[in-house]
Amino acid sequence: MNATTKAPSRRRPVPSRRQDFFHFEDITTRWNDNDVYGHMNNAVHYALFDSVVNRWLHDVGKKHALRQDRIGLVVHSRCDYHAELAYPHRIVAGLRIDSLGQTSATYRVALFAEHGELAAAEGLFVHVYVDRATRRPQPLTEGLRTAMAGLLRPEA
Amino acid sequence: MNATTKAPSRRRPVPSRRQDFFHFEDITTRWNDNDVYGHMNNAVHYALFDSVVNRWLHDVGKKHALRQDRIGLVVHSRCDYHAELAYPHRIVAGLRIDSLGQTSATYRVALFAEHGELAAAEGLFVHVYVDRATRRPQPLTEGLRTAMAGLLRPEA
Amino acid sequence: MNATTKAPSRRRPVPSRRQDFFHFEDITTRWNDNDVYGHMNNAVHYALFDSVVNRWLHDVGKKHALRQDRIGLVVHSRCDYHAELAYPHRIVAGLRIDSLGQTSATYRVALFAEHGELAAAEGLFVHVYVDRATRRPQPLTEGLRTAMAGLLRPEA
Amino acid sequence: MNATTKAPSRRRPVPSRRQDFFHFEDITTRWNDNDVYGHMNNAVHYALFDSVVNRWLHDVGKKHALRQDRIGLVVHSRCDYHAELAYPHRIVAGLRIDSLGQTSATYRVALFAEHGELAAAEGLFVHVYVDRATRRPQPLTEGLRTAMAGLLRPEA
Repeated sequence: MNATTKAPSRRRPVPSRRQDFFHFEDITTRWNDNDVYGHMNNAVHYALFDSVVNRWLHDVGKKHALRQDRIGLVVHSRCDYHAELAYPHRIVAGLRIDSLGQTSATYRVALFAEHGELAAAEGLFVHVYVDRATRRPQPLTEGLRTAMAGLLRPEA
Repeated sequence: MNATTKAPSRRRPVPSRRQDFFHFEDITTRWNDNDVYGHMNNAVHYALFDSVVNRWLHDVGKKHALRQDRIGLVVHSRCDYHAELAYPHRIVAGLRIDSLGQTSATYRVALFAEHGELAAAEGLFVHVYVDRATRRPQPLTEGLRTAMAGLLRPEA
Repeated sequence: MNATTKAPSRRRPVPSRRQDFFHFEDITTRWNDNDVYGHMNNAVHYALFDSVVNRWLHDVGKKHALRQDRIGLVVHSRCDYHAELAYPHRIVAGLRIDSLGQTSATYRVALFAEHGELAAAEGLFVHVYVDRATRRPQPLTEGLRTAMAGLLRPEA
Repeated sequence: MNATTKAPSRRRPVPSRRQDFFHFEDITTRWNDNDVYGHMNNAVHYALFDSVVNRWLHDVGKKHALRQDRIGLVVHSRCDYHAELAYPHRIVAGLRIDSLGQTSATYRVALFAEHGELAAAEGLFVHVYVDRATRRPQPLTEGLRTAMAGLLRPEA
């Protein structure tokens, strides 16, 4: 509260573009996505990230007969909000994987306005894959690892 | 998917303790906070962060007759999940301010199990204060800045 | 808790069919629509009803330049749940108007599984149209009444 | 849209009072309970009903060692909205049981403003108790039936 009080040192991040993502999904917005300010509440973005990643995992799981006893727990998530999104407009989500570990994956999800080229919001979350009963980390199965390779950004 | 694929380089963050926060609030959980894994869904944490910060701002606003034409927009948020929380258990939220800028503030919110000493989850979000109509950043008012001083961590 | 304790006297309602509705909308489901039982939580249905009705009103409003100082407040809502719905599957919503008053309308919304012919859930809600500032009931405008006529069930 | 168009024939229901309920619970509201109209969105009420009933069932279950293989599915719900509720204010929920069947129960839940005597909103939902795996209706266990007796309205 004195002269040493500094502004947060974060540089303003640069929004990604559609071409930076490898999987896309349409999302319909809902009336109560908007808060009293008339725009999509910041917590809703995370509900959409979850939905995009888990639907992709669901589709992969059917194709590759993945084990149902492994689940992904979120240990970290974050989001940068570049522009407002709002009901009743449609959203397009882009998905890629930024990095893969032995038992974890870092997903990046961007939310685009229906006809937007630059991400209106962009986040990531880290999934650790665990045994559903014991909640102990488990190595990614080969089937899942293979599917994830298709979403991995080139430089990763 | 080759030798260059690395695990995420994040170190596992250390949970804060109750003593690291300056304002507390009880939160009742809800049935649908839990997702299919039987624990509080990761997006719900952000809805709680929002609620804690805005209730504090609401109370400050009444006491200090703050201007109603300034609103806080979230430009960045993040969360580390240390342990599972779940309905039907009560949660205690701790709040502090990590840094103050000319037009922005970085709030840190921790969620504790009712009798927990270590944060089960801990996040931050950056509010930029803007004019409600134009959405252009505006300097923090003196009243708000004074109130915020009481939440500022010592070293900030 | 004695011999006079009777089962609820409600007859089991008959699900409507797609042909009973006059306006349709696709809805994408979300991960946290499902509760711990692995199906869409019963409160989510109402969030979808809201979204369907208000998107229709939004589109009507643009076409007919409706007054922005009139809003619809829900005074009653109800839902019958015939079958489970669940993320990640798409939903189709059907909309019609069951009755129109001077200041109110009763909307009926059915939710169908993507390829379902019978409603999985079906509800209604009563909107009373009020002045946004005073919250006093106001007659439906002619523009809105005309648009609503297209959704009104024949026998109404 | 002609002479036969009638207003909904519902009489305006009379709000219940606190004395009409036998179990109470405090609820903290959340920022995004409010929609763009600045009041609690009508779907949130149902999320609160769910939370109140299931927390009561959770507490009963611990006390009476209820079977975990029986779950309650909602087959019908409804709500009358008498007055607006809003974040950041606390809510008190009142609970009673209106009727008991062989395999079902009809819960009534009222939501009161923190210092309100008349219900701001009041709803009911019908739970059918089923086997968790087969989803076939099952008779209420004696333990649950005994607990429910304490919530049953006198005339039921």
